Amino acid sequence: MDGFLKISSRDNALIKLVCGLQSSAKERRKNALFVLEGLRICCDAFENSIRFDKFIVSETAEKRLSSDIKKLSKNAEKCYILPDSLFEKIALTDSPQGIIAVAKIPERTVKIDKNGRYIGLENLSDPSNLGAISRTAEALGVSGILVSGDSCDPYSPKALRASMGTLIRMPLFVCDNLLDLINQNGLNPYACVVDSDATPISNIDFKNGDILLIGNEANGLSANIKENSKRVTIPMSGKAESLNAAAAAAIAMWEMVR
Amino acid sequence: MDGFLKISSRDNALIKLVCGLQSSAKERRKNALFVLEGLRICCDAFENSIRFDKFIVSETAEKRLSSDIKKLSKNAEKCYILPDSLFEKIALTDSPQGIIAVAKIPERTVKIDKNGRYIGLENLSDPSNLGAISRTAEALGVSGILVSGDSCDPYSPKALRASMGTLIRMPLFVCDNLLDLINQNGLNPYACVVDSDATPISNIDFKNGDILLIGNEANGLSANIKENSKRVTIPMSGKAESLNAAAAAAIAMWEMVR
Repeated sequence: MDGFLKISSRDNALIKLVCGLQSSAKERRKNALFVLEGLRICCDAFENSIRFDKFIVSETAEKRLSSDIKKLSKNAEKCYILPDSLFEKIALTDSPQGIIAVAKIPERTVKIDKNGRYIGLENLSDPSNLGAISRTAEALGVSGILVSGDSCDPYSPKALRASMGTLIRMPLFVCDNLLDLINQNGLNPYACVVDSDATPISNIDFKNGDILLIGNEANGLSANIKENSKRVTIPMSGKAESLNAAAAAAIAMWEMVR
Repeated sequence: MDGFLKISSRDNALIKLVCGLQSSAKERRKNALFVLEGLRICCDAFENSIRFDKFIVSETAEKRLSSDIKKLSKNAEKCYILPDSLFEKIALTDSPQGIIAVAKIPERTVKIDKNGRYIGLENLSDPSNLGAISRTAEALGVSGILVSGDSCDPYSPKALRASMGTLIRMPLFVCDNLLDLINQNGLNPYACVVDSDATPISNIDFKNGDILLIGNEANGLSANIKENSKRVTIPMSGKAESLNAAAAAAIAMWEMVR
């Protein structure tokens, strides 16, 4: 295909860059880049006006998916083609489709809407949970996601995959201090907790400007967040100690927007 | 420890058996056995009167967790101790705790309660979803789980791990024909679908004897199930095509039991 640079050495700087971005949040932050793997999420990003810094395809994909690749390549600064065996080195999936884009981590220009309804995640550690919560949030029409800086990286391959691409579409705010961001924007925080003396979530009449807060999978929300929020709970009747964070978030967001 | 047989060869039949049970649903069915890995789930099984056919520990675990191992070994037909390096061959986790039990797949003697509220899964393919749904079902007090025979194996390591042990505690009915089992027990089926002409789930007044049905992650429920059930839907407002099966099940079960 025209304009595609051929790379055949695994010592090439591009190969090293992509491997680093795939495996390390530190590398993603340092370069302000992340990796989109697969046709669908690359198309999603394209439709959401996310420019590709680099667009990389395998030799097989170039033949099989030529019309999609032609379209996507116009969204890229630079395009590369790799032998299948080398492409497999930079792909995370077992049977890669042969399409990878490297994109700049977007600078969010969108602002928090005081009349929106948000979900906030404090110190969430599992990228699959973050992705699942993003997917549910978008489906239910939640306005956006606030993520504390000590949470897992929303631009990790696992989070992006579990989110079905929603993490690159949803208004997303990564911040050092969740409570400061909430207060600065005049949102009303509700802390989701497992304490039996908290208000059952179905008793809350949620309004515009509310934000639900979900904490770490093992330790829940910090004392600081709990002390500065209304504590709400999903009553549980079984032996299970708690709901999974993504399931709790799904039920809580459903109650917030229903 | 007394009564523990030492195994040091990877050609031992026990090693082959456990590896087969860890990796293959067919092997689990053929032997009617499954594997419990880790202290917590082994203790869970013990407390739920699940006898261990075999109980296997690593040399390091025997020293570190001796009181737990002593207690659990009394629940086992035969006990084995393995060098750490050999234990790692049969463990699925990266840093194994050094505790594995092999148990008989329980013959369920419990019956479906006509006054219960159930969740039914048709052709669910992802064991992590099955485990997550079981965990949520138990936490919300759902009476039990019906699983169609073409769904993934509830006794797979992934499903058990995602369920946090709830799959060995919840009343679980694996059946060839989901609709037959529902009809034989006089349950009222509600099919969870994404069709916009289905009844919004919050308009349903759920009663005892109701069962919610969730279908395959990619294809949803079969036509036969949909035609013989009341179709309900979780209204969606975003760009997402559908909720993840575990998130949809969480919201639907919450509506059923709230």
